[in-house]
Amino acid sequence: MVNNKTSHLMNYVRVVLLIVLLSFSKSGISQNNSQPAFKIIPLGVKGGSDESNLSSYMVAPFHSDNYICLDAGTLYFGIRQAINKKIFSGNAASILRNNVKGYLISHPHLDHVAGLIINSPDDSSKKIYGLQFCLDVIKSNYFTWKNWANFSNEGDKPTLNKYQYAVLDTGKETAIENTEMTVQSFLLSHSNPYQSTAFLIRNNENYLLYLGDTGADEIEKSNKLFLLWQAVALLIKAKKLKVIFIETSFPDEQPSKQLFGHLTPTLLMNEMSTLSKLTGVDAMKDFPIVITHIKPLANDAEEKIKTELIKENLLNLRLVFPKQAEKLEF
Amino acid sequence: MVNNKTSHLMNYVRVVLLIVLLSFSKSGISQNNSQPAFKIIPLGVKGGSDESNLSSYMVAPFHSDNYICLDAGTLYFGIRQAINKKIFSGNAASILRNNVKGYLISHPHLDHVAGLIINSPDDSSKKIYGLQFCLDVIKSNYFTWKNWANFSNEGDKPTLNKYQYAVLDTGKETAIENTEMTVQSFLLSHSNPYQSTAFLIRNNENYLLYLGDTGADEIEKSNKLFLLWQAVALLIKAKKLKVIFIETSFPDEQPSKQLFGHLTPTLLMNEMSTLSKLTGVDAMKDFPIVITHIKPLANDAEEKIKTELIKENLLNLRLVFPKQAEKLEF
Repeated sequence: MVNNKTSHLMNYVRVVLLIVLLSFSKSGISQNNSQPAFKIIPLGVKGGSDESNLSSYMVAPFHSDNYICLDAGTLYFGIRQAINKKIFSGNAASILRNNVKGYLISHPHLDHVAGLIINSPDDSSKKIYGLQFCLDVIKSNYFTWKNWANFSNEGDKPTLNKYQYAVLDTGKETAIENTEMTVQSFLLSHSNPYQSTAFLIRNNENYLLYLGDTGADEIEKSNKLFLLWQAVALLIKAKKLKVIFIETSFPDEQPSKQLFGHLTPTLLMNEMSTLSKLTGVDAMKDFPIVITHIKPLANDAEEKIKTELIKENLLNLRLVFPKQAEKLEF
Repeated sequence: MVNNKTSHLMNYVRVVLLIVLLSFSKSGISQNNSQPAFKIIPLGVKGGSDESNLSSYMVAPFHSDNYICLDAGTLYFGIRQAINKKIFSGNAASILRNNVKGYLISHPHLDHVAGLIINSPDDSSKKIYGLQFCLDVIKSNYFTWKNWANFSNEGDKPTLNKYQYAVLDTGKETAIENTEMTVQSFLLSHSNPYQSTAFLIRNNENYLLYLGDTGADEIEKSNKLFLLWQAVALLIKAKKLKVIFIETSFPDEQPSKQLFGHLTPTLLMNEMSTLSKLTGVDAMKDFPIVITHIKPLANDAEEKIKTELIKENLLNLRLVFPKQAEKLEF
């Protein structure tokens, strides 16, 4: 009997210890901020050709379903794939109408806006955020009645007023309507003199950085990326910036005169090296870099880019290769 | 021996008779034109939303692989599906480069040109055929460097000269370069004052008629469709016109003020009735009508449109509902 009682007591102690241990471990996760801050559903990840899979990323704070779309190359097909994978339920139009609260467009090249234009008849009222240069082209060259019915609130008459243009200011943080997020924007050089935008998204003390198409400073004869790295270096050191989305369109073999404002693995890693000098190399170790806009060219360019990036990753970045409708958390 | 000789003779006679019979039957097939004149690979069939499946039809004479694309909403994804179904071999870019000899664009709405713009970097040199109003918008609002690199031979400098604009004249038949086909074009009304185009494709004595988006004459306050029916009625009676591709975007429930220059089943059948008065009803019996541009809206609009068309088909047209990458022959 004594033995039995002792055995029961020991079991009891074990269970209590386990519970205490588990709750410490849980609180540990929370204190270290290792619970994700953002969830991202890539609706399209490629840098061209495949109309079913062009740049667009749905982003929301981890505990929210109020998403924005960072670029809008492919929407409908990506959402439908996400429904197939049980990430969303309902139909594509209802997800677009109810869960996408606004669009942030980095630049007006067709592979970044086609999904927004094509799906506008089925969409709900919301804002399109962008720098002036970008919204100007959407206004004058897409929502013109000649290209497409003008679902926006400016430009060629009659305006159907479903979308409201919201001009961002590179100096200012702007609240994104109907979400828990704000955005700061930074100019990028995309085949000088053409421009693109980086968006720094904030939810509380957590940040996510998304770059639209961009060339390297050395190729573009620009300091736009350097200014961006200066702006975010402290956020990386403070572990507030959770992830960077940045493009690598071409493999290293692409001649530098035919980059058209894009990065290669070597050029990306050069930029990362510049960034690491501002943050210290320790802060960049295991830092998540999501590689966007890989061009699906012939000669296995996609595989080449991945292999080269992995080989040239001397900083030990955590390289992430996103797939359409596969949820990411950072 | 005599018996054997007789038997050989009889066999000989049988074989000769069979050959004569077969050649008569073959020539009969040829005279009745029951061998197909055209083959068509739909690369995209829908009237919106789904970026992976927007209006585009590859058309070639039955015995040729020199295709044109009638509209170019989705190219890459459609070709890839056709490769999956063994209609083509190789990769999508090589089919686009080698088998598509030119584009005929009915009107410049994005769902009819997105695939052409997006895939232009991987394409080979060829012509873009269209009426002036259509090519003007492609020139001024798509290939502008601001929207996309200018792969054409006119407009914003520098011109990369991969595509040559070929302005069609509604009064004239134009040879389509590097194919065995010619085209005559007809103006359509697509939400007056906006326009669209019908293309009458000819190979020898065989014709195919493709209409871009169009409203009904009664709604558009137009006679554009009537003029088109007048132009093709004799070709139908002579059995030279093999098929008509025409849109039905909305079900009958769509309010007539919200048609945006599109047809419903009832409006299509009214137009077919007008056509049948010019051809006689017998000529329309079993005549193939390919229904394009059905909008994938909520509330099962696609099924509704099909059901209504079948119900309202008093002329006994042969209604064909095309699917992406499923080959058609007429």
